[in-house]
Amino acid sequence: MTFRAPIRDLAFALKTVGHPELITRAYPELDDDTVQAVLEAAGAFADNELAPLNRRGDLEGARYENGKVTAAPGFAEAYRHFVEQGWNSLSADPAHGGQGLTKAMELAVFEMVHAANMAFGLCPMLTQGAIEALDLHGTERQKRLVLPKLVSGEWTGAMCLTEPQAGSDLAALTAIARPDGNGRYRLSGQKIFITWGDHDAADNICHLIIARTPDAPPGIKGISLFLANKFEVRDDGSLGARNSFRPASIEHKLGIHGSPTCVMLYEDAEAELVGELGQGLAHMFVMMNAARLQVGVQGVAIAERAFQQALAFSQERKQGRALFEDAGGAIYGHPDVRRTLMLMKARIEAARGICLTTGVLSDLARRAATPEEREAAKARQELLTPIAKAWSTDVGVEVASLGVQVHGGMGFIEETGAAQHYRDARIAPIYEGTNGIQAMDLIGRKLRANGGETLKGLCAEMALTAEVLTETAELAPVGRRLAAGIAALERAADAVLAADNMTALAAATPFLKLAGDVVGGWILGRQALAAAGSDDPWLRSKGALARLYASQVLTQAPGLADGLGEAGEDLADTPAHALAG
Amino acid sequence: MTFRAPIRDLAFALKTVGHPELITRAYPELDDDTVQAVLEAAGAFADNELAPLNRRGDLEGARYENGKVTAAPGFAEAYRHFVEQGWNSLSADPAHGGQGLTKAMELAVFEMVHAANMAFGLCPMLTQGAIEALDLHGTERQKRLVLPKLVSGEWTGAMCLTEPQAGSDLAALTAIARPDGNGRYRLSGQKIFITWGDHDAADNICHLIIARTPDAPPGIKGISLFLANKFEVRDDGSLGARNSFRPASIEHKLGIHGSPTCVMLYEDAEAELVGELGQGLAHMFVMMNAARLQVGVQGVAIAERAFQQALAFSQERKQGRALFEDAGGAIYGHPDVRRTLMLMKARIEAARGICLTTGVLSDLARRAATPEEREAAKARQELLTPIAKAWSTDVGVEVASLGVQVHGGMGFIEETGAAQHYRDARIAPIYEGTNGIQAMDLIGRKLRANGGETLKGLCAEMALTAEVLTETAELAPVGRRLAAGIAALERAADAVLAADNMTALAAATPFLKLAGDVVGGWILGRQALAAAGSDDPWLRSKGALARLYASQVLTQAPGLADGLGEAGEDLADTPAHALAG
Repeated sequence: MTFRAPIRDLAFALKTVGHPELITRAYPELDDDTVQAVLEAAGAFADNELAPLNRRGDLEGARYENGKVTAAPGFAEAYRHFVEQGWNSLSADPAHGGQGLTKAMELAVFEMVHAANMAFGLCPMLTQGAIEALDLHGTERQKRLVLPKLVSGEWTGAMCLTEPQAGSDLAALTAIARPDGNGRYRLSGQKIFITWGDHDAADNICHLIIARTPDAPPGIKGISLFLANKFEVRDDGSLGARNSFRPASIEHKLGIHGSPTCVMLYEDAEAELVGELGQGLAHMFVMMNAARLQVGVQGVAIAERAFQQALAFSQERKQGRALFEDAGGAIYGHPDVRRTLMLMKARIEAARGICLTTGVLSDLARRAATPEEREAAKARQELLTPIAKAWSTDVGVEVASLGVQVHGGMGFIEETGAAQHYRDARIAPIYEGTNGIQAMDLIGRKLRANGGETLKGLCAEMALTAEVLTETAELAPVGRRLAAGIAALERAADAVLAADNMTALAAATPFLKLAGDVVGGWILGRQALAAAGSDDPWLRSKGALARLYASQVLTQAPGLADGLGEAGEDLADTPAHALAG
Repeated sequence: MTFRAPIRDLAFALKTVGHPELITRAYPELDDDTVQAVLEAAGAFADNELAPLNRRGDLEGARYENGKVTAAPGFAEAYRHFVEQGWNSLSADPAHGGQGLTKAMELAVFEMVHAANMAFGLCPMLTQGAIEALDLHGTERQKRLVLPKLVSGEWTGAMCLTEPQAGSDLAALTAIARPDGNGRYRLSGQKIFITWGDHDAADNICHLIIARTPDAPPGIKGISLFLANKFEVRDDGSLGARNSFRPASIEHKLGIHGSPTCVMLYEDAEAELVGELGQGLAHMFVMMNAARLQVGVQGVAIAERAFQQALAFSQERKQGRALFEDAGGAIYGHPDVRRTLMLMKARIEAARGICLTTGVLSDLARRAATPEEREAAKARQELLTPIAKAWSTDVGVEVASLGVQVHGGMGFIEETGAAQHYRDARIAPIYEGTNGIQAMDLIGRKLRANGGETLKGLCAEMALTAEVLTETAELAPVGRRLAAGIAALERAADAVLAADNMTALAAATPFLKLAGDVVGGWILGRQALAAAGSDDPWLRSKGALARLYASQVLTQAPGLADGLGEAGEDLADTPAHALAG
């Protein structure tokens, strides 16, 4: 099955939900032609170089032998091409060799990369996190010698947080960095789940590691951020001795076999402080937030990949008497199959819009005209980030599962390829903070940040769209259901804001789902408005997708809000042994 | 991770939703002590013999070599013990060596078998289908020589329907059976997806195959049912020559690796007619309906297995500051984790209740006191079968996915075992008629069978439960929400009954989901009523589960009904190319 980057959908999404009027003001060099050219070139790379490696990466995977990791077949060469063609540095600062494009553009490009080959995409994705951390908090030397190599992609980055006893709770970590007396550190400890922690696709690997210092206070205040390079970086930028850290093994995983997930051992490794002592977690969150949005994009990407494959199958497979004759007897002519595929596509477009919107907000947070605009953009970006991560990755799993289902029995056979997407998709709701953590972040920090004002501002803006929809004949049901969804979201937000801690935490995941459902409906509504009145089948489908989503997803928003926040007492009253049958 | 058969939950479900008053009248020998003894003995077998083979079956799987299939390690021996201990013949007629127990009991036992080892359970499950078909339609010779061996389990059965071009649409099949002039047939063709079609765990394998006869009319009227045994069955019951059919390969699948899925080649194989010429599909549906309910039970089973593993992990894994102190610092103390686990359990109990209820109805359809009672039971059984199959298997996938999620990063590592359940669970919504086919069966045949009267009767009975719940203080919210759900289901049924074909087919899957959600709520409500007023934590949890389900699932029923049946025109208007981005 051939993958084709969804360039038209991406360009349309950027235009309709990407605030082009604001972005053009902030990035005057980014005109329509540039956007189209970048999307097409990236799409061609994804289609022709990355997608063909995806299956082999799954079958053969990365290998661990003799203390070294070898990337999956073809991955190292593809990575070299990726870097040579400049795809690694799209949004980085031109001062460090980047191309200064928008984050939103970069996300659009990465969606195609992840869709073509999610295991591959993780490597440059983690490098980006390292770029952001060093850009904001690196020393002058790190910015001069390391940052440009990460920007170019000649070297890659790794994020080293998790330890066996410290996953979601990083405060529990025990890796230790001892001052060596010369302003540097010696770092020891074990880190697990280190994505692309070792490989042979680049000359050097820059590990950003959180660890404690010997006299640091317990808890998160004792955690600092360190940089340890696989090979020493000399003052002239050349590479020196091998550092004393190594992969101890790689994991045998459910999916993304092409991405080596390393257990890393640091044995008195040379390390440098990044940023301030005791600020490690805060600095790491710079990387985490960017990575969370990227993981949301992975959810969109794997869903798009699974959708394309299911759509193609549904046009080839003939079975039974199809009601709709436009499908030439293939199962796409069966209403239930078509409804399934359209709902898959609607969810993908909703998730894509949420992720791209969040990316645009991060661009505006950096470059909007006034401090007020930048601050407002940042607040909304922060509100939407956990939704973009969790809701989109849930969409990834659901759509990949439906993709298997559309294939019938063939979907369960590995060589069909649909099963790989189902396996690959499953990691995204877990890493970079589980979706449960995202939900707690949403209600605990983001919603409450300013008494719910950021969400209320978003709801007011969405309500305007709902009004316009309601006045547009064929989209009126979307408008009414979106309005009801917004009202439900506001009601739920008030309830969560007023609730005690237990009740609010019990409501976190349903609240995030509700928020994603409603914001997704808003996205689809705006796309439908932009497409309204056209006779082009592709543009007409935007209205059909919005109506289907409204009738099958938005309709459930009031019920979701209604049941929210009741469970606390029952949870408190149910010990684990009461659930054993 | 140790599996423990959920005996207490199963016994409770049989008592509360299993119409014990009616069953005792129909099966007077089945008293409480017998039920408990059977459940305990089966549970011990599942825990001690089958569960320990599950992981190895996944890792090493069944093997195909030199034209023969070898069962996964340990499976053949376990199967021998299974047969020796009589588990294969629970519900079969004592006249053929069976034990004459109820179908519902058998389903309860099979739930434990499938949970312990789903790949293993498929073998006796398919034998059961063959038993039913021969019992109803077999010749005197088949009943005398073959049936008792299938009942005892010395021989196994295989269901041979699918061909590459004929999956959901069996009318398209091309396998052909030519009369040999001596009252028998020579059968040729290829069948795919033949579960346990070949193996070394039993002395003989009896293939029930649908095929055409040379002069038969096209379409389903030309299809007949045949029996072809791997080894000739002589008139004295002894085994003779090897028949001319063989496995050509086995599939490399996403899950259930311990179950060999064979491509079978029949090359002029000796075959006998079963039942009447041209009635093959009707006869096969006898097997299919039993198998569909069993597949629903597999959904419950894999969900139970995944739930147990996640619950155990949540009690061991310490991470972060848990709000509920009763969990000793483990993540079960986090409200979001606990809510997730409780909702998993609630869905399992709802699905279990639906499946067991359907099983009880099939018992009453055979043995209730009056023809009217038998007919009513049969009508409701037929209505509930597609719901039991589709809704429960969707629960299986969803709960297995949440089971991975509860494990965090460890869930994605294969050695943890949670990923196997996620992989295994995925087949159940596909085989024995995809869930889309079930939904079409529900609205096309079952709902319309008598103008919707069967569903209305069920709704009236559920409404009585809702009233009692509403009058029971702590269950009043369950009662109100169940009543609203029932009203929504009735509204949706009226809409589907009044709709044109396109609209009804487009509404099929959401309608089935709605029906399952509501019937599931009724099940949980009855369990909660049976447990009300107790101080025992396990009984108290039944109320908590009903309330959680009502607040997070039943609340969405009105919205689901509201949006149903609108999509038809938009579907008709959206050709496949309009969805390509």
